[in-house]
Amino acid sequence: MALHFALMIDPAASDDARTDFSETFTAVDPAAPALTVGELSTQRGDGIFESIGVVDGHAQEVGAHLSRLAHSAQLCDLPQPNARQWREAVTRAAAECGPGEAVIKLILSRGIEHGPTPTAWVTAATAADNTRARTRGIRVVTLDRGYTLDAPTRAPWLLLGAKTLSYAVNMAALREAHRRGADDAIFTTTDGFVLEAPTASLILRRGDTFVTPAPHGGILHGTTQLSLFDHLAAEGYETVYENVPASALHTADAAWLVSSVRLAAPITAIDDVDVPVDAELTAAVNAYLLSPRD
Amino acid sequence: MALHFALMIDPAASDDARTDFSETFTAVDPAAPALTVGELSTQRGDGIFESIGVVDGHAQEVGAHLSRLAHSAQLCDLPQPNARQWREAVTRAAAECGPGEAVIKLILSRGIEHGPTPTAWVTAATAADNTRARTRGIRVVTLDRGYTLDAPTRAPWLLLGAKTLSYAVNMAALREAHRRGADDAIFTTTDGFVLEAPTASLILRRGDTFVTPAPHGGILHGTTQLSLFDHLAAEGYETVYENVPASALHTADAAWLVSSVRLAAPITAIDDVDVPVDAELTAAVNAYLLSPRD
Ligand SMILES: Cc1ncc(COP(=O)(O)O)c(C=O)c1O
Ligand SMILES: Cc1ncc(COP(=O)(O)O)c(C=O)c1O
Repeated sequence: MALHFALMIDPAASDDARTDFSETFTAVDPAAPALTVGELSTQRGDGIFESIGVVDGHAQEVGAHLSRLAHSAQLCDLPQPNARQWREAVTRAAAECGPGEAVIKLILSRGIEHGPTPTAWVTAATAADNTRARTRGIRVVTLDRGYTLDAPTRAPWLLLGAKTLSYAVNMAALREAHRRGADDAIFTTTDGFVLEAPTASLILRRGDTFVTPAPHGGILHGTTQLSLFDHLAAEGYETVYENVPASALHTADAAWLVSSVRLAAPITAIDDVDVPVDAELTAAVNAYLLSPRD
Repeated sequence: MALHFALMIDPAASDDARTDFSETFTAVDPAAPALTVGELSTQRGDGIFESIGVVDGHAQEVGAHLSRLAHSAQLCDLPQPNARQWREAVTRAAAECGPGEAVIKLILSRGIEHGPTPTAWVTAATAADNTRARTRGIRVVTLDRGYTLDAPTRAPWLLLGAKTLSYAVNMAALREAHRRGADDAIFTTTDGFVLEAPTASLILRRGDTFVTPAPHGGILHGTTQLSLFDHLAAEGYETVYENVPASALHTADAAWLVSSVRLAAPITAIDDVDVPVDAELTAAVNAYLLSPRD
């Protein structure tokens, strides 16, 4: 995932009358220093982000990602991002992505300590090869997220529905999964419900019904899950949001972790118990996710 | 808190035979770009830090801060920092601090994405004037941290005892406190115990006994609390670590939030209920905390 493009954005220069935002952008060398040590993103993980999948130069589901960025900004008391400015930055970054798969990241930081405004930038990088995860699948373990299902409602300062830059716990959970010989993790609540993976959403199949944990604050509402549910509904399947008890993991007819860059990774085992894999459906799902989507 | 000094450190060049680490340091302009957008500190708050108080050019309790940095590194699976290298960097930074109070920050990031080694740096800045908090005191509110007291034992991947760069929740809790008309917050567990403030430790007075929540994983072990307990014990007081129920907040004879830069801030009210203030003891405590400590 070597970065090949980076664009600094001036979020303060985004007045609504503007039709061309290029003057608010500064292309920078992604390998050269571009941020000061006073950056609050780096001092306190104080900011928000999005990772957008790019296929053959087409950035996927930009609207859904910009909506989630706006939602994260609101939860974190950051100024609302100007959607037109960010969309133009994504277009610029996508134009730098050649054929194949890439990833565009959007970052909105609270800025420099005691500085006047947030800082913001966009990067583009070639995506890792995710073929193996998509076809051979992944082994996962369940890990306690420490919260009850209702924590986000009771304590919005826990920022549980926001995609913040404070991902140290998510990364630690992935390291713990690797230590246990697995590829990824599924977070559970202390009261026995299933949430999401550290960087992906969970979808279970139960007959002809696809189920995902209801995103009422405790998890990120995944853009990939959302897009896939639309597609599955159009294909005639049932799709439902539910409070999913951890016990449902072992009775599922199939299960996937889905996210913007890795796309749909079929789960082959949860806590060392095998899960049935539907290779054909998985291939169809990934073909859909790789097609241009808006 | 304008930064006036920044030093990049090469943690990979810290072999133990070295007696002079100056070749592993590069002074940089703190107002100029020094970090790349690939930095994992900035992308995911993936790293650890320390904030050290400096009084008239003397960095306080450097040994205790370096021990905690090492502990955080272990919890986060980061390479152990070389204490001699970091101590030399602190000495360099302290030499750049004039009379009065300053703050030196140590940052150890997991590095650049897919890069070979962590990145690290040290900054120095003039401290904010904390006289008002130290003399007039602070109003605090209690905020649910979402966890039970035993969460860190059950789930070490929550990194609860580590001082990570993922401080978005701590910052959100401070904003929530300000929204409620308070200056600071005290985190509580869902099972009714008291933890710490978002950037400080809590000390309660009960007669001639000083009490602080037991740091078994759920909170940071504060260097200021530790130093103050040594001092209070030497003065003949009892000092104890306990599981402190939230109900104890309202029966305390006095209460303080203590931390390396603001030092001891007497609490004047908790959730709008007045707390007795011992101005004389507070002044003596802050005089001790401002004296050179190692
Ligand atoms: C915590 C978390 N949940 C879910 C997702 C999946 O979201 P999306 O499908 O929009 O990539 C992500 C993406 O990184 C995530 O970080
Ligand atoms: C969460 C937390 N607890 C406690 C403290 C107090 O630690 P110290 O006294 O070492 O500054 C800090 C310091 O910033 C902190 O961030």
